[in-house]
Order: sequence, then structure tokens, then C-alpha cells
Amino acid sequence: MRILFVGDIVGSPGRSMVEEYIPKLKRAYRPHFTIFNGENAASGKGITQKIYQQFLGLGAHAITLGNHAWDKKEIFDFIDDANRMVRPANYPEGTPGKGLTYIKENNMELAIINLQARTFMQPLEDPFRKADELIEEASKRTKSIFIDFHGEATSEKQALAWYVSGRVSAIVGTHTHVQTADDRILPGGTAYITDVGMTGPYDEILGTDKDAVIKKFLTNLPVRFEVPKSGRTQLSAFLVDVDEASGNATRVERILINDDHPFLG
Amino acid sequence: MRILFVGDIVGSPGRSMVEEYIPKLKRAYRPHFTIFNGENAASGKGITQKIYQQFLGLGAHAITLGNHAWDKKEIFDFIDDANRMVRPANYPEGTPGKGLTYIKENNMELAIINLQARTFMQPLEDPFRKADELIEEASKRTKSIFIDFHGEATSEKQALAWYVSGRVSAIVGTHTHVQTADDRILPGGTAYITDVGMTGPYDEILGTDKDAVIKKFLTNLPVRFEVPKSGRTQLSAFLVDVDEASGNATRVERILINDDHPFLG
Amino acid sequence: MRILFVGDIVGSPGRSMVEEYIPKLKRAYRPHFTIFNGENAASGKGITQKIYQQFLGLGAHAITLGNHAWDKKEIFDFIDDANRMVRPANYPEGTPGKGLTYIKENNMELAIINLQARTFMQPLEDPFRKADELIEEASKRTKSIFIDFHGEATSEKQALAWYVSGRVSAIVGTHTHVQTADDRILPGGTAYITDVGMTGPYDEILGTDKDAVIKKFLTNLPVRFEVPKSGRTQLSAFLVDVDEASGNATRVERILINDDHPFLG
Amino acid sequence: MRILFVGDIVGSPGRSMVEEYIPKLKRAYRPHFTIFNGENAASGKGITQKIYQQFLGLGAHAITLGNHAWDKKEIFDFIDDANRMVRPANYPEGTPGKGLTYIKENNMELAIINLQARTFMQPLEDPFRKADELIEEASKRTKSIFIDFHGEATSEKQALAWYVSGRVSAIVGTHTHVQTADDRILPGGTAYITDVGMTGPYDEILGTDKDAVIKKFLTNLPVRFEVPKSGRTQLSAFLVDVDEASGNATRVERILINDDHPFLG
Ligand SMILES: [Fe+2]
Ligand SMILES: [Fe+2]
Ligand SMILES: [Fe+2]
Ligand SMILES: [Fe+2]
Ligand SMILES: [Fe+2]
Ligand SMILES: [Fe+2]
Ligand SMILES: [Fe+2]
Ligand SMILES: [Fe+2]
Repeated sequence: MRILFVGDIVGSPGRSMVEEYIPKLKRAYRPHFTIFNGENAASGKGITQKIYQQFLGLGAHAITLGNHAWDKKEIFDFIDDANRMVRPANYPEGTPGKGLTYIKENNMELAIINLQARTFMQPLEDPFRKADELIEEASKRTKSIFIDFHGEATSEKQALAWYVSGRVSAIVGTHTHVQTADDRILPGGTAYITDVGMTGPYDEILGTDKDAVIKKFLTNLPVRFEVPKSGRTQLSAFLVDVDEASGNATRVERILINDDHPFLG
Repeated sequence: MRILFVGDIVGSPGRSMVEEYIPKLKRAYRPHFTIFNGENAASGKGITQKIYQQFLGLGAHAITLGNHAWDKKEIFDFIDDANRMVRPANYPEGTPGKGLTYIKENNMELAIINLQARTFMQPLEDPFRKADELIEEASKRTKSIFIDFHGEATSEKQALAWYVSGRVSAIVGTHTHVQTADDRILPGGTAYITDVGMTGPYDEILGTDKDAVIKKFLTNLPVRFEVPKSGRTQLSAFLVDVDEASGNATRVERILINDDHPFLG
Repeated sequence: MRILFVGDIVGSPGRSMVEEYIPKLKRAYRPHFTIFNGENAASGKGITQKIYQQFLGLGAHAITLGNHAWDKKEIFDFIDDANRMVRPANYPEGTPGKGLTYIKENNMELAIINLQARTFMQPLEDPFRKADELIEEASKRTKSIFIDFHGEATSEKQALAWYVSGRVSAIVGTHTHVQTADDRILPGGTAYITDVGMTGPYDEILGTDKDAVIKKFLTNLPVRFEVPKSGRTQLSAFLVDVDEASGNATRVERILINDDHPFLG
Repeated sequence: MRILFVGDIVGSPGRSMVEEYIPKLKRAYRPHFTIFNGENAASGKGITQKIYQQFLGLGAHAITLGNHAWDKKEIFDFIDDANRMVRPANYPEGTPGKGLTYIKENNMELAIINLQARTFMQPLEDPFRKADELIEEASKRTKSIFIDFHGEATSEKQALAWYVSGRVSAIVGTHTHVQTADDRILPGGTAYITDVGMTGPYDEILGTDKDAVIKKFLTNLPVRFEVPKSGRTQLSAFLVDVDEASGNATRVERILINDDHPFLG
């Protein structure tokens, strides 16, 4: 089974990139499953039902989220019915939506788990114990398990990866919006990358207007952050091949498309 | 001018890697200047005078540091005489050591600046204004200026990079111990990478014993962190070519050496 | 000289309290100078020009601010002309407004300094060194110096107090919205209290709707915080007597007015 | 039932204060139950078995702890047998010790719960839901329930207080080492104070050598913190009267003993 995961899609520049490149990537790589992180899809903050539907229309089998999941209020209206969307599973009990879902294709089933880290972030429930619980649950249905671990600190992301190593097919980081070069298969057969990186503006800061971000650092005053609608763009993604029999990853590949790394198809 | 920069060298595994690979990298790439980040060189915490001398003996022209600079107390005994070592320049006035130094070779002069970020870190002086000040000072002597920006948050690292873009030859991030894949030359002619990554244990967490780090996340109890002395290792580095006439970067290359990415020389 | 300082005035409940009690407090205590912290005066977030004028009309000689100073955008339109308003002095150079002002009455002059702490807060400039600088400047004009140190951590607030002890007449904390019971005169003759406390709703959380705050802690989801307009209210203040000849505090008194501690006049 | 609670006892100066004043306070107030917060009892960091025994010998019926509970390693040797000691209940499952205990005297039973906040602190389990769980459990045995909520942020402490209001007899804050003046009985019949304050050195910073703490803020370099053994001292405590039939608090009193507030017996 081949899985294509696209990192944090930011605003309309990010959506344009997936519109343009998902067909090309599908042709080139022929993934069985395509997953998008959509926490920043709506103008950098949250996701709308329309965008969720658009992403499914583009061929996404599932959407993962993160700390920005809740920025657009309409999420509360549709998340409970959005079967192909997961929000971090370690939000406290009673949180709308779910943190584990399953997608099927050609007799293959993939479990998708979304978790959020806590270092420098909100005090959600323990992602390590929540991972234990969800991996046990998912393992009853399938050996192919994919985790999007949305987090800031490299230590916590690597720690969870080593902790679940051998029990899941892949654990990929999101949230820092910068792709890391440490993609590998851990000794236990688990694909890993600390962060897949961001899909959106290429010449801004994490996808946000760079002048505003710099002004924030220079002044410590309130600044309005926007996703610029023009300018060069990039796409960040990660490809994992999984042996369905064992659930082990067999191959990983980072994908980074921008003017400095054009897609060669 | 070609500059080879080696990211955070962690403990004896990190020191062994530079001992083994610096000669090979010098042969393969022929850099004019070699710079090491040494903040974790002494058992993961700080640096000793002996290690400082060892690094110079290995061919390092300068050593940069970071938040761990002060972990070995003997630093206070030799930092003021260590002309080839810079600690973050934005520590407050009166801090031992210096944050800007110059290295010369074959009529080429390179200014080396060390700065530390503040997001999720200590409240040092403003690295943006300190950068302005030191770039202005260094520019009086040379157009070739190299910054090691030691920081946690991707936003602050990209923000300073765009802020100094066009005014320095290169700004590279350190501290997260994970190499990022976003190496590029910014439109202003400034080489950039969010983090060069770590040189040390390959199968641990940021170079620290992974069982201890996982235990910390699972228990929130005090845990003793050590750098394991055996096991596989890696080296993370960054290569920048600079046109001395303009001070502009003309080429960048990420270097990552481990069992999954063997050095092909 | 007697100084009456009123802690963080929150929204319309806070403004109503000062309207009602400032005349009574003035009659009872006859302060020469009255100072308000106004960072939350406009619906809990910032201050408007109208409220600034209202406060002066109520007899405030000066208004201090804090991290919320900038929440109402119109602050930028009038802060530079508001001679009787100080914002934290350790915002970076170029920030509108000023951090030191002087007020005069009957041949007595009082210097008023506003500073902001950094622990668990924004990385402003060092409040300790900024205090040195402003105390030196103010000392040229008067021995009576009053500091509002706006901060979260008790350690940093006590540290600055001991640091400036003997050099200022009083240093009072604000920002936590809870009055502390540690009012005293430090050995150097400096009046101190870790936090003066909040003026506003009595049965809410720091002046904010308690259901919303509890919901935030229970869910970690976005919550809209409002200052409830009805319900019981309180006033928190601090009284300092200063000997103008020496600049030393001679007497301090905490003032807390609410249903459990009615004002007895 | 009358409960006397003594706030964070710091090092030998703190232990001397309880040795001297507990007999006097017992004579003056005749509490049925005496509780000490002992997280800093051993040289500012943790508690030893000897000190635990000493505290029981002084008449403490129970000891509460906090984030410093684990600083002396020997805690792990005796905490599981220390029936009269509670550590924050929301440490993760498997943590040694317990977070709820019961003490009995003259047919009266008091449940004692220790919880720790998360804002600006470690990401333990949710103290709000853990409070629900433990209150439900304790309520099966007694209506008299006392919570020591160890936390930094005033908002979180007030939030938990309002959340459990009407369900417990008292919730008192510890950890900031500064007594607050907001002691009250909440409308639901629950005694509350944001922080009881510290018992130890009076002329230092939170009980720690003030020169060291100031040096830390001035330099951001590593500093060794010690509890000075000489100098003036203080004791901070809180007194609650509880009606056993209803479990409601009927009276509260703050106690602060130092040279500025001598104990009058
Ligand atoms: Fe994101
Ligand atoms: Fe995120
Ligand atoms: Fe490092
Ligand atoms: Fe570092
Ligand atoms: Fe405030
Ligand atoms: Fe504030
Ligand atoms: Fe404490
Ligand atoms: Fe504590």
C-alpha cells in the first residue's frame, strides 16, 4: 500500500497547490491513499465544510487537523458528520469529532490517527497513552496504521515515534511548517519524519505574511496575520510504502515542490 | 569562499563523528572555512577548553555556541581568551565571551555571528536589533558574514532570515537537533536553512538516551539525561559558497551522514 | 506625600467602582496623588481616549498600563499626546507612548514608571536594566519615584523590588488581578506589594466571565471572554505615604472593597 | 471542625518556624486538623522521610506536596508507605504515592486532595476532571473535603475553585510562595484563597537567596539557588472552620507571621 500525505495546507495558495499537483503526484506515484493536513486550509486558520468537500473531491481519502482545527466556527457544525476527518485524539473527552478513522480501498484498510503534542502547546491529554489506546483499538482491524503527530518540539515528536515504533506503519510530524530532512524507517519498521512541512506561500514565514511576522518580533505589539494571496508557492508531502501483511513501512520519500525544487513528474 | 558548518556536536559520539569525517569532508569539498556548533560537545552539555582545542586541531576555524554554552563551569575560565569561539551575542551586557569574531584565510575574511532566539527560550536581548548592530559593525571589515541563529521556533528563525536577507552571506539555524530540508538562497542572496541538525547518536532522541526522554514524557518526574556512548551515529552539516566580492551566497548543500545516508566521498 | 494606586480596572464594572469609590477614598484618605492601572479599562482589553479622559476627570493624576495596553487600536491615535499615561517602558525603542512621566501637585513631584516582566510573558527589553536607566533619569528631578511593575511570576516581581529597593519610593505589582497580602516596606525604605489586585467583577475569574474561563480549561477550545456587566464588584488599591525629603516610604496600606470587606469610610 | 493549613515550608528556616509556632497556633486556635505543604521542606527542594516524620511529630495530620515533591530521590523509597502524605493526584497513572488521603480525629473525618495546575507548569492530567473523580470518591466517606491546588496562574486557581465550589469544604492555592489577600467563602460554601504563601526566609525571594535570583534575572546564566540559613523568617497559614453536617466552610482566616506582623497569640 502506498500512502501520500500532504503537510499543512495554508490558505488559498496551499489549496491551489494541491489542486495543481495532486493529479500530477497521483499520476507519478500512484498512491492508494491520499491524506491532507487541513488545519490551516481556510485562510490559514481552520477549515470549512466547503474546503473539506473540495479536498475529498481532489482525491483526499482523509483530512487530519491540529491546534488550528477550531478556528473557523463552522467546524462544530460538520465535524461530527465528517467521517473522513480526524482532529487530535487527545483533546479531552466530549470534544466534537474523532481522532481515529479508517479508510478502505481495494480490500486494504488504513487506520488514521491524529494526535497533538504538549510541549510549548496546550495541555491536552497525554498523547503517549492515547497512542497506546488507539493503536490497540486500530490493531483489531488492520495492521496498517498512520499517525499525524501535530507538534512543536522535536524531542516530543521523536519520543513518540520511538515509543510507537514497531506498532504503527508511519508516524509523521506536522505543525512547524518546515519540512525536516530526517525521514527514515525506524528499526521497528515504522516510517518517520519530524515534520512534513507546509503547502502554501514559498516566500513568506510559515505561510503567513512575512512583514507582519517580522513586525511582531520587532514590536511585540498586536499584529494581524494574513496569508498573502499572490507570490510563489510550494508543496510539502511525504510518501510511505507499507507492506499490508506486516504493517511495516518498506520505503519513504520526501516530496518538496517549489521553484528551487521543481516537480519533474 | 566555501564554508562548511557542522551542526550541534553532541558528546563523545558527536566528537568521534567529526574526527572521522572532517578529514573526508575537507578532501571532498575543500572548504576554506570550517565552523562547528559546540554547545553540546562535552557530554551533551557545554564545552571544555580541551574540546575547544581539539576542535581547532581538527581544522575548525571557529566554534559557535547556544543556550547550553554555560553548562560546564570551566567555560568562564577560558571563554574570554578563546578568540575563535562565539556565544550568542544577545546575552546581556557584561556576559563573558563575545558574539562576533572574524576568521581569515588566504586574504579572505569571514565574520561569524552567533545569536539566540527567544520564543520558548530565555528572554535575552532582541536578536533582530542585535543583528542590525553586528551586521553594521562586521560590514566595515568584510562582505562575507555568517550567522548561526540558535533557536527553537521555526517562525522566529525564518523571520530573522528574511530580516537580514541581502545583508549577510548565510544564516543557519541550530538547536532543534533535526536537520530541515528547506535549505535555499533567499532572493537577497542569503543562504538559509532553518536547522542544520545534530551530530551524534543516530538512534536516540536529539542525541540523548531515548529511554530517559520517553520516561520523562510518560512520567513528568525528574530524569537524568545522558548521551549514550555506543550505538550508531550521524553527522549533520551545511555547505555554503559565497562570492567574496558581493558577499552573496551562490550555492548551498545540505550534508547528512548516517547509515541511511552513507557518505560517498 | 500620600499616593493612592488602584489596581487593574476591568471593564464597566471596574469603571463603576472607581466612579463610586474614588470620591469616598479621597475623602477618607486625602491622597495627594491618585494613579489607576487602566490596561483592562475598555471591556477588559485596552483603554480608549474617552476612558482616559474619564479617569482624569475622576481625579486620576496618571494612568499606568500593561500587556493589554494595545488591545484597542485607538490607543495608537492618542497615546503620544496622553501626558499622564505610561505604558511599560521596556517595550522596544520606537514603541508609541512613554514609560516614565512626572506629576506635580503643591510643589511635590512624583515620577511614575511602568515596567513589564518577562517570565511567562513577552520578551520585552530587560526590565532590570531599564529600571536602572529610568531611576537614574527620574532621580535628577525628584526623590519620589513610583513603579508599577506589571508581571506574572512572583519571583520576578520580588526580584525587581529587592533590586530597586532603596532607590524608589514604591514598587507595586499588577497583572495577576489578585491582591497579595505581602505589602511591606523593604529595608531600603521602598514600599512593595507583589500585586495590588483587580477592580471589577467580584464573582468572576480575574474579572472575566467565569463560565467562559472554566470552559476554556475544560475544553482547550477557542472561547470568547467577556466582562459580565452585572453582578457584585470589588475595588483593589494600595496606599503609600512617602517622605519627600528622603523619598522613603513611611507607611503602606492595602485597600480591598467588596461585599466581604465593605468600605467603612 | 477547624483546619489549620501551613503554606510551602521552605528549608530549615521554614522548619524552624513551624517548630516554634505550631504549638502557639494550636494553643491559640485549637484546630482539629493541621496540614503542612512540604514540597520545599528539604533545603527548598523536596522532602525526606526524616522531615516527614518530624512534621507528624509536630502535630501535622497530613502533608501535601507539589511540583518539587520529587527533588529528593529518597521520596521514592517512602512515599508509598506514607499514609499521611499526598502528592498531586493528577500525575499520570503509575506515579508513586497517592493524591487523596483521609485523616480522622474525634469521629470527624477529613478528605485531603492534592492537585497541580498546568498553566506555565508541567502537562499533568486534567486537574478539573481529576477533581470531579476524587470529590465523588471522597464524598462517599465524608462531606469534609480539603483541596491543596498547587499552581502558578491565578486564572486556573480561581477557575478550579469556582468549578468545585459547593462540592468541597475548602480549596487553597500553594506554589507562588506569596500569600494572597482574596481569602473568602465562595457562594457555594467553599473556603478559598489563591495562595496561602510561604513559610521560611522573610527577606529573600520566595525563600531563595535573593542575590542568586537577581543574578539569574540579570544574566540568564546558570545560578545555584540556596535557602539562606540565617535571617528573618515568616510563617504563612490559613484557617478554615467547616460545618461537618453540611461540609460547608463557615469561617476563614489568613495567618501571616513575620516582623511586620508579629504573632499576638
Ligand atoms: Fe499548521
Ligand atoms: Fe498547528
Ligand atoms: Fe544543541
Ligand atoms: Fe541549544
Ligand atoms: Fe490586567
Ligand atoms: Fe496584564
Ligand atoms: Fe513551593
Ligand atoms: Fe511548587
